[in-house]
Amino acid sequence: MTRQKIESLRALMKKNNIQAYLVFSTDPHQSEYLPQMWERRKWISGFTGSAGDLAVTADDAGLWTDSRYFLQAEQELQNSGIRLFKIGLPDVPTLQEWLAKKLKAGDSVGIDPKVISYGESQKLEAHLKEWKISLKSIETNLVDQLWEDRPGFPGAPITLHPVKYAGEPIESKLERLREKMRDENTSVHILTTLDSIAWLFNIRSRDIEFNPVAIAYAIITNKKAMMFTPMNKITKEVRSQLDGIVDIFGYDDFEEELQRIGETSPKVWLDPNAVNRRIVDLLRPKCELLFKQSPVILFKAIKNEVELAGLKSAHIRDGVAMTKFLHWLENAVPRGGETELSTAAKAEEFRKEQPLYQMPSFATIAGYNEHGAIVHYEPSEETNVELKPEGIFLFDSGAQYLDGTTDITRTVALGTPTAEQKELFTRVLKGHIQLAMTRFPRTTAGNQLDTIARKPLWDVGLNYGHGTGHGIGSYLNVHEGPHAISFYRGIGVPLEEGMVISNEPGYYKSGDYGIRIENLIVTVEDREFSSPDSEFYKFETVTLCPIDTRLIEKSLLSEIEIGFFNEYHRTVRELLSPHLEGDVLAWLHKATEAI
Amino acid sequence: MTRQKIESLRALMKKNNIQAYLVFSTDPHQSEYLPQMWERRKWISGFTGSAGDLAVTADDAGLWTDSRYFLQAEQELQNSGIRLFKIGLPDVPTLQEWLAKKLKAGDSVGIDPKVISYGESQKLEAHLKEWKISLKSIETNLVDQLWEDRPGFPGAPITLHPVKYAGEPIESKLERLREKMRDENTSVHILTTLDSIAWLFNIRSRDIEFNPVAIAYAIITNKKAMMFTPMNKITKEVRSQLDGIVDIFGYDDFEEELQRIGETSPKVWLDPNAVNRRIVDLLRPKCELLFKQSPVILFKAIKNEVELAGLKSAHIRDGVAMTKFLHWLENAVPRGGETELSTAAKAEEFRKEQPLYQMPSFATIAGYNEHGAIVHYEPSEETNVELKPEGIFLFDSGAQYLDGTTDITRTVALGTPTAEQKELFTRVLKGHIQLAMTRFPRTTAGNQLDTIARKPLWDVGLNYGHGTGHGIGSYLNVHEGPHAISFYRGIGVPLEEGMVISNEPGYYKSGDYGIRIENLIVTVEDREFSSPDSEFYKFETVTLCPIDTRLIEKSLLSEIEIGFFNEYHRTVRELLSPHLEGDVLAWLHKATEAI
Repeated sequence: MTRQKIESLRALMKKNNIQAYLVFSTDPHQSEYLPQMWERRKWISGFTGSAGDLAVTADDAGLWTDSRYFLQAEQELQNSGIRLFKIGLPDVPTLQEWLAKKLKAGDSVGIDPKVISYGESQKLEAHLKEWKISLKSIETNLVDQLWEDRPGFPGAPITLHPVKYAGEPIESKLERLREKMRDENTSVHILTTLDSIAWLFNIRSRDIEFNPVAIAYAIITNKKAMMFTPMNKITKEVRSQLDGIVDIFGYDDFEEELQRIGETSPKVWLDPNAVNRRIVDLLRPKCELLFKQSPVILFKAIKNEVELAGLKSAHIRDGVAMTKFLHWLENAVPRGGETELSTAAKAEEFRKEQPLYQMPSFATIAGYNEHGAIVHYEPSEETNVELKPEGIFLFDSGAQYLDGTTDITRTVALGTPTAEQKELFTRVLKGHIQLAMTRFPRTTAGNQLDTIARKPLWDVGLNYGHGTGHGIGSYLNVHEGPHAISFYRGIGVPLEEGMVISNEPGYYKSGDYGIRIENLIVTVEDREFSSPDSEFYKFETVTLCPIDTRLIEKSLLSEIEIGFFNEYHRTVRELLSPHLEGDVLAWLHKATEAI
Repeated sequence: MTRQKIESLRALMKKNNIQAYLVFSTDPHQSEYLPQMWERRKWISGFTGSAGDLAVTADDAGLWTDSRYFLQAEQELQNSGIRLFKIGLPDVPTLQEWLAKKLKAGDSVGIDPKVISYGESQKLEAHLKEWKISLKSIETNLVDQLWEDRPGFPGAPITLHPVKYAGEPIESKLERLREKMRDENTSVHILTTLDSIAWLFNIRSRDIEFNPVAIAYAIITNKKAMMFTPMNKITKEVRSQLDGIVDIFGYDDFEEELQRIGETSPKVWLDPNAVNRRIVDLLRPKCELLFKQSPVILFKAIKNEVELAGLKSAHIRDGVAMTKFLHWLENAVPRGGETELSTAAKAEEFRKEQPLYQMPSFATIAGYNEHGAIVHYEPSEETNVELKPEGIFLFDSGAQYLDGTTDITRTVALGTPTAEQKELFTRVLKGHIQLAMTRFPRTTAGNQLDTIARKPLWDVGLNYGHGTGHGIGSYLNVHEGPHAISFYRGIGVPLEEGMVISNEPGYYKSGDYGIRIENLIVTVEDREFSSPDSEFYKFETVTLCPIDTRLIEKSLLSEIEIGFFNEYHRTVRELLSPHLEGDVLAWLHKATEAI
């Protein structure tokens, strides 16, 4: 199947006189999760992970993905004729290096200029130029020409995200943005990332699974704010609420408006990592361009007091649902018949009972035993297995509530854990606790903290391949920049007060089991340590749910770590108890007993 | 004095029709330490630190330096009319941002294209362009036009660095370099950094204080290796030894050769962070250019077995000298009359007694009490103070031996330390030990380890402003890239087997005292943890000298840390004892007793 598609693509490549074609895993908005119509790399390669770029030449093909997807990609690319390149491993060539070896001077590499960011395309072009290979924009995506039953535009209506959840009216957000635009002498700012647009205009929609965003572009000038989105998404109510604040146009009117804007030769602010190359190609001939990260990125990442209150409230409800789920799980597994898929569905049921619940914030990762070792495993009908009262079970799930987004991982023992499992769970927990307890000076970047969570595993010669934490939106995307706690993302981005981030170290024993413990944490001022000369920050953990004490080898934890852990469980008990009763309440009390 | 010089510079700026002029702290070779003739920023501003760029406009002037020099720059710039900008502190504008605010569209900023790297000039130019400000190359440095008694070219002879210390003949180094050149399809490589040239050609000289390098340029083609250096530096012996391997030309012939090379339009490999803008301006019209870090940087950083054996041997000799010094210091201070300068001289005396000693590897930092809080304090006749049998004394020194370079800091109590001093010394030591003990997976970059040394201070709301470790040469520069253990340098550069780096956390209480503990460490394979799937590394400490146990608050150290510390002292005692006798030997035994 995949082999046939690749062969058809090669025929189109020949027609277009290009020697390679690149199929990226993103869309015109640089989305991580895509609407089906733009899942071109998935359709043509069969690899279903969220990150992975495909390069096809006349006689070879390669796919580059990161460690989250190494195992999954190996399985899904079997017999596809596509080589897997594992990003970050020693001696693995980059896509650019591979292209340089496969092609010769004078060759052309085709791309769809809408699905590569301007910044990425610049780097790629510069690299290929060293080898006298050129980048060629091909207007109509070649995959689209092959994909006969390609789905159409999703048509979910846009809803307003009220100030009681957003915490700030659109006008105020626009004012802050325009101040930054003035600081940079720019009169136009282009926004293309969907969560930035949703944040700025206080809107939400359902165009993309898990991400409550609307497919749209936005242009903000010093006088006007314009949104470009399919008109069938706009209800009367939304139109009247946005009236006088945001002008609404059709999605396809965007390029025309870009042309019109060019006529006055303004200075336009573009985020090089967000806008696609096509936009730059349209504006460059007429406008002066400033390439710099959009101020909206940082505005959105720093949650206001209303958003933080919502986040905490949502986490009480999510904790109640998760506690009910874990209690149910403990009783259901020995009865038999429960599977990875059925437990994922059950957790969603418990969440649906909670006020303000909207939808899952990502596809639940329910990984029993060896499936837990596949970092982003998503159970399907083909892979689904029954849970038995033995082994360990990794469960990573989250929800979108109107007042906040959650993302939590718990790893639980379904039987009696082995000594090795207990040691490794405890080392992961130790890293998790150490990070949660860290106190650090202002201007510290997230990447400076990544090793803290990793070190208890390094101490015994082990490691995990993913970052330790990602930013998270407020009833928005579960992955959000610019900050991260990672060795490879968010480098040099200081953690600011009000940023929300995950704390999720793990350990994965390939073919055997996986462990991950994930809570969300918020950067807050450390009042005890802060002085006028030197401001200190610390984290506040907001996720509320018991951590399985049966997997803990207490002798590996320090007194301070045990104290922190027991205090966390005390808080969980205190905040969740009022919302639980009967058996579940009794289970919570037992599960959060001091160790 | 400084005010007058700046006014004269402004007159020249007017003549040259530029609205600002930049005086960088480097030279045509991007050196950190400069020969006097190129210390233009120091001459005109009065600021003597090794890092700091000066910008002068018609009515204002600013100097940007990093935290190592905050206190020193404050003192030296008093009444100079030059504002101090502290890099890295919140809300401090960058030099570019400041220029953008001070100047207006259409203005020009003058630079000497020889004393800015191509990479830096590109960034600066792009930034200024956003504000319609242009960068203007001025061939004759404006400071040189004012500096009447500017020193001339240093004329130290070049000596050969024999293979018994270098571990690899020139031919083999050239072969490895040419292989990399072929991999990149380049036939010419330009080297301009002095330590890279010294490493490649196995030569040393004394043109720069502390750095045993020769002022030179080099051009390596697939067939020839050319060195450009003042002819009076070349002895008959050197000429005959290099004959047939390296062709020697005058320093001033370099630009002419660049022109000649252009005639065949080769593809030339340039390191954008090393070559100056002038070189690129000369080559660009005729050649295809590859901008990429020189392979020599990594070759030089990864020490071979001969260099590592030399390093260890040099550290025994250096440890002997330091032990004699510390023993002497303990007795000399109570006798009275010793000062920061006299102790620095005494340490050098002890080192001079050692075989293969050449010179200090940097200016000794001997900081008594509050002087210790100035991170790069260098005592002078004006600041020199007498040491009394009270307070604490920070002593950071190092030496060049033919077989290796050393860099060591010890902080010692001259009287009875306070509880606060003991706590903070112990926290610095704790960070130092934690880093020395770290075991980490291959591909880990130095920046991932910086926080490990910092955390014991963060835990009580404190920090230090500098990085934790720098690379170090082999009878070469005491500061060497590409690796570092730092939050701001060497980001993403993996630590490789054979890299040497310093481990030097500190704590500085402004106006009171400073603490720093520095040993050199080498990255080695961690055989216990390495498997075919996952290679692990660890550090081996090579510096051998007692750490003052009177400053240790033992209750703050874990059992493991105490064990590591005692084992370190046991090694120091074992390796140094055979070279000491009498009182000094007895002192060493006492100083290295288990705590």
